[in-house]
Amino acid sequence: MTDGLFLEDFAEGRVIDTPGFTMTEASIVEFASRFDPQPFHIDREAAERSMFEGLVASGFHTLCVSFRLFTQTAVLVNNMGGPGLDDVRWHVPVRPGDTIRVRVTVAEARPSRSKPDRGIIKWRFETLNQHGEIVMTALSLSFMKRREA
Amino acid sequence: MTDGLFLEDFAEGRVIDTPGFTMTEASIVEFASRFDPQPFHIDREAAERSMFEGLVASGFHTLCVSFRLFTQTAVLVNNMGGPGLDDVRWHVPVRPGDTIRVRVTVAEARPSRSKPDRGIIKWRFETLNQHGEIVMTALSLSFMKRREA
Repeated sequence: MTDGLFLEDFAEGRVIDTPGFTMTEASIVEFASRFDPQPFHIDREAAERSMFEGLVASGFHTLCVSFRLFTQTAVLVNNMGGPGLDDVRWHVPVRPGDTIRVRVTVAEARPSRSKPDRGIIKWRFETLNQHGEIVMTALSLSFMKRREA
Repeated sequence: MTDGLFLEDFAEGRVIDTPGFTMTEASIVEFASRFDPQPFHIDREAAERSMFEGLVASGFHTLCVSFRLFTQTAVLVNNMGGPGLDDVRWHVPVRPGDTIRVRVTVAEARPSRSKPDRGIIKWRFETLNQHGEIVMTALSLSFMKRREA
């Protein structure tokens, strides 16, 4: 019987590799039309005249897909929510047809000082494209149950 | 004839108030099922047994809707993309039926040192619910065209 991973299972430096996801033109335009409807995300013609010289995914889309891929690894079974994100940076545009995946590293894992049933984990996200270029980096914080709790 | 706002129009301290958006249960579950499928975001029964005692919106959903509301103010007409986000924090859960809006303040606005046609703006986001509680704070960075360029 498995009850998932707990704080104690995430040693600093542990690396989790996610599956990949292909950012189709349809999904890029659909996401951006709802959440980031700037011309270079939703209008192929305008995007070609922009500094991006073609459609690019919203950084929010890359961020959300990265988190989705992380949840697919099932390491968050005992996650108790997250307080936030730090240092989100988009380094290289994500374009239609790019396949992205995430290398997640445990940057920090420590027991909570105020709540004995949990700890806080700082995950370092590095989102890569099919060429191995890092397209996004971020730190994601989460509260994780402790096994002994 | 209007050509939108430029770097020079965003004095530090300038405040932009967005319209509101109601986070329906359907939209909370639909977003989370795609990007953050944890039980307390997608499963009403499991959410009631969780520490949240009911469904709550994914923080990524609150973040993306906040940015969407910001784009509705049309201040980003001359935006040239953004390098990232800092200090994203979710303070209060967003629940089905909550109406959120954003108070965006120009925290910093300065010309780029390397590119004379643009500057960098640091926007402070404060997302509020219908009770006036701050549910999320974040800093969003963007590159903005200069008028004189």
